Amino acid sequence: METRRRFLAAGVGAPAALQAASRQRGYTYAEIEKMLARGDVRGRLTRDDLPTPALLLDLEAFEANVDKMAKYLKERGRAFRPHGKTHKRPEIAKALIRAGAVGNCTAKISEAEVFARHGLSGLLVTAEVVGKRKIERAVRLAAKRPDTILCVDNPENVRDLNDAAAAARVKLNLAVDLLVMNRTGILPGEPALELARLIESLPNPRLMGIQAYAGQASHTIGFETRKKVSEEVMGQAVQTRRLFEKHGLPCGWLSAGSTGTYNIDPEIDGITELQPGSFIFMDIDYNRIGGADGPVYRDFRNSLTVLATVISRPGKHAAIVDAGLKAFSTDRAFGPEAKAIEGITYSWAGDEHGRLNLEKATAEVKLGDRLEFIVPHCDPTVNLYDRIYCLRGDRVEAAWRVEARGMSQ
Amino acid sequence: METRRRFLAAGVGAPAALQAASRQRGYTYAEIEKMLARGDVRGRLTRDDLPTPALLLDLEAFEANVDKMAKYLKERGRAFRPHGKTHKRPEIAKALIRAGAVGNCTAKISEAEVFARHGLSGLLVTAEVVGKRKIERAVRLAAKRPDTILCVDNPENVRDLNDAAAAARVKLNLAVDLLVMNRTGILPGEPALELARLIESLPNPRLMGIQAYAGQASHTIGFETRKKVSEEVMGQAVQTRRLFEKHGLPCGWLSAGSTGTYNIDPEIDGITELQPGSFIFMDIDYNRIGGADGPVYRDFRNSLTVLATVISRPGKHAAIVDAGLKAFSTDRAFGPEAKAIEGITYSWAGDEHGRLNLEKATAEVKLGDRLEFIVPHCDPTVNLYDRIYCLRGDRVEAAWRVEARGMSQ
Repeated sequence: METRRRFLAAGVGAPAALQAASRQRGYTYAEIEKMLARGDVRGRLTRDDLPTPALLLDLEAFEANVDKMAKYLKERGRAFRPHGKTHKRPEIAKALIRAGAVGNCTAKISEAEVFARHGLSGLLVTAEVVGKRKIERAVRLAAKRPDTILCVDNPENVRDLNDAAAAARVKLNLAVDLLVMNRTGILPGEPALELARLIESLPNPRLMGIQAYAGQASHTIGFETRKKVSEEVMGQAVQTRRLFEKHGLPCGWLSAGSTGTYNIDPEIDGITELQPGSFIFMDIDYNRIGGADGPVYRDFRNSLTVLATVISRPGKHAAIVDAGLKAFSTDRAFGPEAKAIEGITYSWAGDEHGRLNLEKATAEVKLGDRLEFIVPHCDPTVNLYDRIYCLRGDRVEAAWRVEARGMSQ
Repeated sequence: METRRRFLAAGVGAPAALQAASRQRGYTYAEIEKMLARGDVRGRLTRDDLPTPALLLDLEAFEANVDKMAKYLKERGRAFRPHGKTHKRPEIAKALIRAGAVGNCTAKISEAEVFARHGLSGLLVTAEVVGKRKIERAVRLAAKRPDTILCVDNPENVRDLNDAAAAARVKLNLAVDLLVMNRTGILPGEPALELARLIESLPNPRLMGIQAYAGQASHTIGFETRKKVSEEVMGQAVQTRRLFEKHGLPCGWLSAGSTGTYNIDPEIDGITELQPGSFIFMDIDYNRIGGADGPVYRDFRNSLTVLATVISRPGKHAAIVDAGLKAFSTDRAFGPEAKAIEGITYSWAGDEHGRLNLEKATAEVKLGDRLEFIVPHCDPTVNLYDRIYCLRGDRVEAAWRVEARGMSQ
């Protein structure tokens, strides 16, 4: 059993006497292992008890990130539908709802199924659902959670969805996915209008509105340039919304936005909701895009790290840690960054190893030392771990299961 | 329950009548889901039934790879201890033992624990075990499986292991890990000799011999250059072995070798065993190192693929598949390769998407098409999946759980 307390609340999980006892005597690994297997740590463990590599969450930073985003969007009258592909954990999705979210996004049907099984509704599946089996699953999901929204960009797929919905006597909420980055979607303007008309002409789908996710805008380096890029592509989305309305098609919903454009898109008239994901954890990739107030994007705090142990010191300036290609996502051009010590350079050294260059390190690094690293890219890193260990200071307050880990189907 | 048949055997899992019935009527997704949840498919499903992205294993190619490596090493009188970090599945490790392996390697203690729990012995943990908790686990493992071998490269760590072994009244088999690539290990020659003497001087460790894994040799492009590199670094390992023996230290064991040097290292006198991993699955990375007979390394067959579905066709020459950064490892400079159709270029398009350039494709690619991709790097790709679907032709013969997935601790 994991902690049942609302994670945004302060305080500790274990009675003070128990904690004091733990600090005094320490646990054997066999005892720690049992707690970890049950996911029931109740504040009895510290960071030093965790087996490395371990994925850590700084709860204070995480809670501050959730609060900030929810408040920012609420003040600007935009709905908040955070992306669950970042954390893949239904309990986090529920906490985001409590913070004010109208629902949660998932990337795929399998992720949405896990969220629905844990009682969540308000699901937006952001990738197209194509193929007989996936459509069966989408229809089943919509029967269970009628407010689910699916994205479409192809007339053949719309007809397939309509037929499956008819057979199951289910209505489907469909959003037209716009091609506003080099990925999925249909061209804005007339092609999108035609697809919207098709949806409206069929008996089982309901036209929900437009999804316009522009990943290239979110990751544009430099606030002013990013603002310009997002305004330009979102302008096409808003124009398409107006075109739908001009032709009498319902389009009261336009979902856009991301962690990188959370303070840009709400200023654009016509966007009704944002679907940011990474802001809860943050990563080096987002730190590098720059903020409105300086070259490093610090609007949200880095709450996620990987804890690793130095297992070899093969040279004066070299250390090897036990976290490599299986402990971090590797899809960015840069590696992890040590959190507490400046001047350390990490480089990949295989599936299970990372190499640290200590030549410019501002502190000593010894065999057995445990170091935290900010991750290059949060979403695919979380997808490597079955558990996230939640810390308040040095104390492990909870061990959260990542229930939808690996659910990319 | 997964298939209990020896996977190297031929034949089918389901009675012919049942199969014929399945093909005639087809299953609903709800029925398929139940089979997949139980891992009990018994040849009743085909490739088309699997939810994508899915990790597929071509059993025929896999079995041929196992047979070839086992036979090759046996004929040359070298022990075969394949690396379990590639597949992370105890049943595969057991099958390798049946094929002639003396044991199996694991990268970390957590992986070894899973293997031991499933009854395996003969475990070599190839990364150093450092820190109080990990040492507790290593000693517990050695108590359970006394033939376990651990690698060391540091005197302080050797003393810690000795102390923990003394407290638990356990003997530990220690191998001196040599620094023959830019990673872990102690320098060959005198430094290694000194560490070996320390091991022999202490009451609880037993000196097993030397581990010399040279990843840079394995991945050297071009057979002749690779041979030269491996002979040079393995020469240092063999000399160190002779140095140990000259000083009366037992060193009847020298573990080296890999998929890339399987036909190089057995010719080097003094190497007693090889620890190849990737040969069972293969990947683009290994295909590119070149073989003794040509520019592509084809000594082992590509048995592992990721099956993906085309979920969008955003342009004349563009297709988007549902497999991205969470479906493939991304640690190489190249992306996945389509298996059946020539002229397709895959590029990363986010956590959940891949972009195909079809301009030079030799066949049509339609919405809903399901394509197999050879993976850039097999080990970290397997680590993303909870299941491997085993195919013989188009039939899914088994759905194997990857029990030690995520076990990098």
